[in-house]
Amino acid sequence: MAKNLTTREEDYSKWYNELVIKADLAENSGVRGCMVIKPYGFAIWEMMQKELDRMFKETGHVNAYFPLFIPKSYFSKEASHVDGFAKECAVVTHYRLKNAEDGSGIVVDEDAKLEEELIVRPTSETIIWDTYRKWVQSYRDLPLLINQWANVVRWEMRTRLFLRTTEFLWQEGHTAHATKKEAIAEAEQMMHVYADFVENFMAVPVIKGVKTESERFAGALETYCIEALMQDGKALQAGTSHFLGQNFAKAFDVKFATKEGSQEYVWATSWGVSTRLMGALIMTHSDDNGLVLPPNLAPDQVVIVPIYRNEEQLEAVSEVANSIISDLRVKGIRVKFDNRDTHKPGWKFNEYELKGVPVRIAIGPKDIEKGTVELARRDTFEKIFIEKDKVVSKIETLLEEIQENLLSKALAHRASHTTEVDTYEEFKKVIKEKGGFVSAHWDGTKETEERIKNETKATIRCIPLDANTSSGSCMVTGKPSERRVLFAKAY
Amino acid sequence: MAKNLTTREEDYSKWYNELVIKADLAENSGVRGCMVIKPYGFAIWEMMQKELDRMFKETGHVNAYFPLFIPKSYFSKEASHVDGFAKECAVVTHYRLKNAEDGSGIVVDEDAKLEEELIVRPTSETIIWDTYRKWVQSYRDLPLLINQWANVVRWEMRTRLFLRTTEFLWQEGHTAHATKKEAIAEAEQMMHVYADFVENFMAVPVIKGVKTESERFAGALETYCIEALMQDGKALQAGTSHFLGQNFAKAFDVKFATKEGSQEYVWATSWGVSTRLMGALIMTHSDDNGLVLPPNLAPDQVVIVPIYRNEEQLEAVSEVANSIISDLRVKGIRVKFDNRDTHKPGWKFNEYELKGVPVRIAIGPKDIEKGTVELARRDTFEKIFIEKDKVVSKIETLLEEIQENLLSKALAHRASHTTEVDTYEEFKKVIKEKGGFVSAHWDGTKETEERIKNETKATIRCIPLDANTSSGSCMVTGKPSERRVLFAKAY
Ligand SMILES: [Zn+2]
Ligand SMILES: [Zn+2]
Repeated sequence: MAKNLTTREEDYSKWYNELVIKADLAENSGVRGCMVIKPYGFAIWEMMQKELDRMFKETGHVNAYFPLFIPKSYFSKEASHVDGFAKECAVVTHYRLKNAEDGSGIVVDEDAKLEEELIVRPTSETIIWDTYRKWVQSYRDLPLLINQWANVVRWEMRTRLFLRTTEFLWQEGHTAHATKKEAIAEAEQMMHVYADFVENFMAVPVIKGVKTESERFAGALETYCIEALMQDGKALQAGTSHFLGQNFAKAFDVKFATKEGSQEYVWATSWGVSTRLMGALIMTHSDDNGLVLPPNLAPDQVVIVPIYRNEEQLEAVSEVANSIISDLRVKGIRVKFDNRDTHKPGWKFNEYELKGVPVRIAIGPKDIEKGTVELARRDTFEKIFIEKDKVVSKIETLLEEIQENLLSKALAHRASHTTEVDTYEEFKKVIKEKGGFVSAHWDGTKETEERIKNETKATIRCIPLDANTSSGSCMVTGKPSERRVLFAKAY
Repeated sequence: MAKNLTTREEDYSKWYNELVIKADLAENSGVRGCMVIKPYGFAIWEMMQKELDRMFKETGHVNAYFPLFIPKSYFSKEASHVDGFAKECAVVTHYRLKNAEDGSGIVVDEDAKLEEELIVRPTSETIIWDTYRKWVQSYRDLPLLINQWANVVRWEMRTRLFLRTTEFLWQEGHTAHATKKEAIAEAEQMMHVYADFVENFMAVPVIKGVKTESERFAGALETYCIEALMQDGKALQAGTSHFLGQNFAKAFDVKFATKEGSQEYVWATSWGVSTRLMGALIMTHSDDNGLVLPPNLAPDQVVIVPIYRNEEQLEAVSEVANSIISDLRVKGIRVKFDNRDTHKPGWKFNEYELKGVPVRIAIGPKDIEKGTVELARRDTFEKIFIEKDKVVSKIETLLEEIQENLLSKALAHRASHTTEVDTYEEFKKVIKEKGGFVSAHWDGTKETEERIKNETKATIRCIPLDANTSSGSCMVTGKPSERRVLFAKAY
């Protein structure tokens, strides 16, 4: 079973980094902070994309594509946005290289300096609202419900595969509405869509809530979020949806004629999830033996490994395997037959454990005699022998069970790592010793939030939307508090 | 019928530009040379992507993702590649902006200058082969059959929507093989995959061939291509597939241990198609009334427009429409019901003609009485009345017919615009007056190719793979020629 993986107990962070690389998900590239997403990791991301895209379209959205580059001046147009986004970013200043005169290679051609620098998009509100100005004249042009799948760049000093990289892949929805109410409903809807996807497809439970003012997206009036809890007790923001008010419409002068004929500014939302979800997926389910994938997101849901000593045995085993494979495929189950003769069964068992394939089937000469096959679950390591005629229906059930089991386990972990506290002493102790979500009363001021952050490194992950709303007094200042909020250390 | 479109006869180029904008396919952005792909245009591109992706996977390829940025020094490693690609490109020199000290806005922070400039990828051979070095040790690691869907940037001085833009979307396949033979077979296979897609899905006929040395991709030993002919008699390169030999393996030191234990350099291919295909699609089929879409690529294959004077009539019409819609959807046909009361039927007819929807159904009170509906074909403008019970099977047939008709029309156009010539005088006359493909003998030298290009603006589009190979003598120099090659002016 030795994968030479650091255990989670030893060093969670090291375990994560090793797992991402050993399971062939991603690796660092020759470009600082930029990752290569390897085929196995990308296959998982593609499955996420496909389901999210389906959900976006089902809720009336369409895709489009906007430029990678944004003129520097666009960022200055929305005052709070510029501070949030126009700082640590990749700046294109020239558009040509030339051979160095001294023959030393290629150098930037100083004659090809751009009049205005271009920023590689860190997020696309500015370029999109500059475009929406041309698309919106009347209430008939609204709403615009547009999504874009794209790469974005934020210059990060400390990076980690999937969790924080200079370039990452994401989708960004940007919608325009005639009324405030409709825009708020849209922002809330997309938070629910994200939560639905993350819980039911990724088997990662999340808390829905809103951010405090100081944790809001730059330019937003309200930021809705979904927060997940990792195995090490740290929170991870899995998706955000922003109600942007009329800020971008005012900055880019996007007005529409109402039915009554008056001119009004358009209301906006934006919302996004990114390859960071890969990090959430890995850190929620995986164990010391490697990746654990929920069946909904496993590129191979089932792998069949043949056990044989000679050609004749392989043929007998292959016959059974092929019949199972075609039956599984009819049911839409993704199955792989690994009959490579370059690797031994033990090596393959290890490999698929590391890669998180939910169900492994082993078939050997003894199985052929008895008419059985061996099934092994990745999540529980449970093994059963089953008659080969029953294997397809058993696998259908198993895949559902595994999907559910992963969610239940994650829910149980979150429950056992969510603590309600009433004093700041208790708070500090829990944050330091146990971790997880801590539910506590807070007086609603930036000052107290800041002080807690400085003293404990815990931040307010969200003001939950569905938690109990009983009032109390702030654990730090004793001032009145309308409701508990959720604190945690976070990724 | 007036769309206020310039006609093709008047000004083909202007017609194209207007059509792209009026049909809501794409538009120029505030960033020089970068386009916005609008939802309707993007929906078509998505359908192209989906089918191509399916074909790539069916031929054993997987997707991955490599960094947007490439360190400048990577380009210097493959000598011919640097001249082809590292010149007109976007150069990132800084990673931070700051507030100007004089309060005039934001400026580049000179303290955040990169040690080595980063190039926004114009194509990814260098960064990918730098990665493959880590992935390939033994023959067991080969072949690598990897594709990437990505945005790329080539700094173009003169741009046109879809045809030549500074940023464009594409896919780039990059494969690594143990033998020369296998790499050549892969490069040829992908040319065939492209031709299959473009002809059978886009209804755009193409000639398969190889490029002459001077038209080859920078770094390739052989460039396979597919060439299409537009309505104005100009050729358009629709896709290329390159056999790269061991050039990139040598440049990035990618070796593998053979079965016999020796160390050898890996053999490479790369292949790509881009949003340029949108240009080919538009220019092949569309007419003076707007876009004409082959049913395989029409976001809406059928649109239903209700004709009514009062609420009661609309209800009766809607009932028939909804029943047709559900029957069509069962068959997998994409249908839209435009029952907006903000626009008149005539306006809608016009709109869907402009947008190229293959089949329009109109249903009015008289149809209800007679139990019929009116069908109109976008490609021929033919209209028929048909009993409503027969409409679904008729539409199934019609969509196939339209798909075939568009291909036949394009084939006929190409046939009538392909001319075999034997003298240079004739050649110059045809290129100048008639345009199209000109098939002629050429002596195989760069000098003659260059002279023809300078004197006529026609280039050798390809040395066709399946044309007749009878020998002759060069139309310019009279020297011996093994076979005719295909010339044209090109996009
Ligand atoms: Zn724990
Ligand atoms: Zn013509």
